[in-house]
Amino acid sequence: MAVCFSSPVKPTTYFTIRTQPKPKNPIFRCQCSVTTITTTEPQPIYTSVRSFAPATVANLGPGFDFLGCAVDGIGDYVSLRLDPAVHPGEISITDIDGPSKLSKNPLWNCAGIAAIAAMKMLGVRSVGLSLSLEKGLPLGSGLGSSAASAAAACVAVNEMFGGKLKADELVLAGLESEAKVSGYHADNIAPAIMGGFVLIRSYDPLELMRLEFPINKELFFVLVSPEFEAPTKKMRAALPAEVGMPHHVWNCSQAGALVASVLQGDLVGLGKALSSDKIVEPKRAPLIPGMEAVKKAAIEAGAFGCTISGAGPTAVAIVEDEERGRMIGEKMAEAFWREGNLKAAVAVKRLDRVGARLISSIPR
Amino acid sequence: MAVCFSSPVKPTTYFTIRTQPKPKNPIFRCQCSVTTITTTEPQPIYTSVRSFAPATVANLGPGFDFLGCAVDGIGDYVSLRLDPAVHPGEISITDIDGPSKLSKNPLWNCAGIAAIAAMKMLGVRSVGLSLSLEKGLPLGSGLGSSAASAAAACVAVNEMFGGKLKADELVLAGLESEAKVSGYHADNIAPAIMGGFVLIRSYDPLELMRLEFPINKELFFVLVSPEFEAPTKKMRAALPAEVGMPHHVWNCSQAGALVASVLQGDLVGLGKALSSDKIVEPKRAPLIPGMEAVKKAAIEAGAFGCTISGAGPTAVAIVEDEERGRMIGEKMAEAFWREGNLKAAVAVKRLDRVGARLISSIPR
Repeated sequence: MAVCFSSPVKPTTYFTIRTQPKPKNPIFRCQCSVTTITTTEPQPIYTSVRSFAPATVANLGPGFDFLGCAVDGIGDYVSLRLDPAVHPGEISITDIDGPSKLSKNPLWNCAGIAAIAAMKMLGVRSVGLSLSLEKGLPLGSGLGSSAASAAAACVAVNEMFGGKLKADELVLAGLESEAKVSGYHADNIAPAIMGGFVLIRSYDPLELMRLEFPINKELFFVLVSPEFEAPTKKMRAALPAEVGMPHHVWNCSQAGALVASVLQGDLVGLGKALSSDKIVEPKRAPLIPGMEAVKKAAIEAGAFGCTISGAGPTAVAIVEDEERGRMIGEKMAEAFWREGNLKAAVAVKRLDRVGARLISSIPR
Repeated sequence: MAVCFSSPVKPTTYFTIRTQPKPKNPIFRCQCSVTTITTTEPQPIYTSVRSFAPATVANLGPGFDFLGCAVDGIGDYVSLRLDPAVHPGEISITDIDGPSKLSKNPLWNCAGIAAIAAMKMLGVRSVGLSLSLEKGLPLGSGLGSSAASAAAACVAVNEMFGGKLKADELVLAGLESEAKVSGYHADNIAPAIMGGFVLIRSYDPLELMRLEFPINKELFFVLVSPEFEAPTKKMRAALPAEVGMPHHVWNCSQAGALVASVLQGDLVGLGKALSSDKIVEPKRAPLIPGMEAVKKAAIEAGAFGCTISGAGPTAVAIVEDEERGRMIGEKMAEAFWREGNLKAAVAVKRLDRVGARLISSIPR
C-alpha cells in the first residue's frame, strides 16, 4: 500500500533546524519541527540500501526520561529500494518480518512514520520507495523496539539520498514516530541513532549531549527479558505525580554520579548509580513479577548494578566481561523463574558506540 | 579559654574510617563517625602552622544539596601553635579577627569544633593547642563562611601532626562543625577541603566524587554579595516539600548536564546548567530583593550562567575571562541597587583547584 505524505509545494530556502559546527564535546541542538531543510531536492545515490539500528536501554535508573544508551548486536533492519511502482514522493511497506500485529500502513508503523518524516525533511518528491522491515527486537520489551525501527528507517532514507541529515535531525524524524507510539521521549531514539550514551538536555529546542564512554574500556549489558507484558502506559501510570525533596536530591545526585561514571569509564560507579533509583524503580519493579529478586541475584552474582530497562519488563545489569555476564544472566533468569514464575531469555551485549548505520547498499 | 574534648582512654586499633586505595577517578568513601583512627598518638612536627581554606559555592543551580566548588583568593585563615599553657589534649581559641559575635568557646565556634574533631580522629592527648582565626569571609553570605573556618582549622591540626588524615576524613571532621551550624551538608565543606568541584554521592557511608575541571581551561566566578541577610533557615523553609515529576526530570537532566559540562570543561554548557534550576532558585530568588534582575543582567552582559550561591544572598555568575567578569559584576551590582535597593560588593575569582592548605609553618 502506498501512502502519500504531504510534501511542501516548494522547498524552503532557510534552515529551520539549526545545527552547530561540530563541537569538541558533541552537543546537538535543533528546533523542534519537521520541515524541509534542503534547498534543492536531493537525488538518490543508491537503488537500494539496508540499515541496522540497535536496541537501547533508556532510563538507566536515576536517568529516568533523559538518559539512554545503545546496545550492539540486537536491533532492527530496514531495507529500502527505489520503486517505480510506488508513486513519486510516496513510500510503501512491502514486507514485515516480525509480529503480525504490526501495520503495513506507513502512517501506523514506526519505520513508516520515521521514513516519511525523513523524506519530508529532505524534500523528496520525485521518487517512490519500498520499505521492508525485519524486527530483531520483540515489542514491548523495554529495549527500544519502536525506536530501533524508526532509527533504521530514517537512517536508510537519509543514506539513500546522500546522508544530508545530521544526527539531531534524524532524531527529530525518529521522534515523530516515538510521539505516536510511546510519547515524545528521545531517550531511546537518540541513542538508537547516535550510539553510545546520550543525555536529552531539552526538547525545545531539542538538545542532545553525547556522553563518551572511554574507548579503551569494555562495557557489557546483561539483558534478561521475561515472558511478560509490561505496557508502557501501565508503567507510566505507576509513577508518582510528585517526588519528596529528599528523594529528588538523592536521585539528582545519583544522576550526576551516573554521568560522571560514564565519562570516566568507572564501571563500579556506573553500576552503583544504575542501582540507586529511589523514585521510579521502586514503583515499577513490584509490577514485574520477580524483578526485585532478579536485581538482588544480579548484584549477588557480581554485576556492578542492575535496574529495569526502559519501562520493562527486561532487567538490565552491567558487567565488564562477557562470560561473567552470561553466568550472571543465568542467575537472573533463574530468579525470574523462581520468584516470578516467568521464563526469561538472556542476552549479553556490548555497548554500541556507533548507532544506526548503513550495512549494505547497491549504487545506481 | 581552654575547653577539654573527650579523647578516648586509649586509641582504637582498627580503622572505622575505611579509605580506599587512591583510584584513578577520585572517589572518597568513609563511614560516618568521628573516632580515633590512628594506632599510636601522632607527635607534632611543627611548633606552629598557618592554613587557608577557600570560599565555596554550593548548589550551583540543579546541583542543589549535593554539588559545590571552591573559589580561590577569598577565604579564612587559621593559625595554630603548640601552647604549653593549654592543658594537654585541649584547644584554646585566643584570637578572632572577624565579626564580634563569633564565640571563642571552641565548642561553639566552627573552627574550634572542626579542630576538636580532627584532634579526636588523630588521638591527640599529649599537647595543647592555641588557635587564632582570621575571617576573610562575611557570615551568612552564601559563600561557605562556616565551612572555610572549619576546613582551615582541621587542615591546620592535621598538618601540625604530620598530615595523617585523608581528605574524606577531614571532610568528616568538618562536617561535625557544619552539622552544628547549618545542617549535615557536605556541599561546602567538601570542596573547601578538597578544592575544585565535588559531588556528594552519599552520606552513609560518606562518598565524595571529585569532578576534575580540565586543567587547561579557565573558569572565573563573579560573586556579587549584597548587603542583605538571607538566613539559611528562612531559605530552607522556602523550599517545596514535594517536586512535580516533570520538574524533577528536568532538574535531574540539568544536573547530569552540569556534571558533564564540568568534566568536559564546557563553559557554555556549564553556564546553561547553572541557570536552569526550576525547583529551588524560583522559590529563593524572590526572597532576595533584585536577584531576578541581577541574573538577567548577568546573562545579558555575557555571563555563561548565573544563580544563587548556596542559600544566598550572593549571586554567582560564571565567565572565562577576569576582566569581562569585572564588567559583568558591575552590571549585576547595578541591578541589585536598581531593583533591590541593595549595595553589593563584587569579586571575580578563579576556580580553586587545591582546597584548604598549609601556607606557612615553623618546624620544631
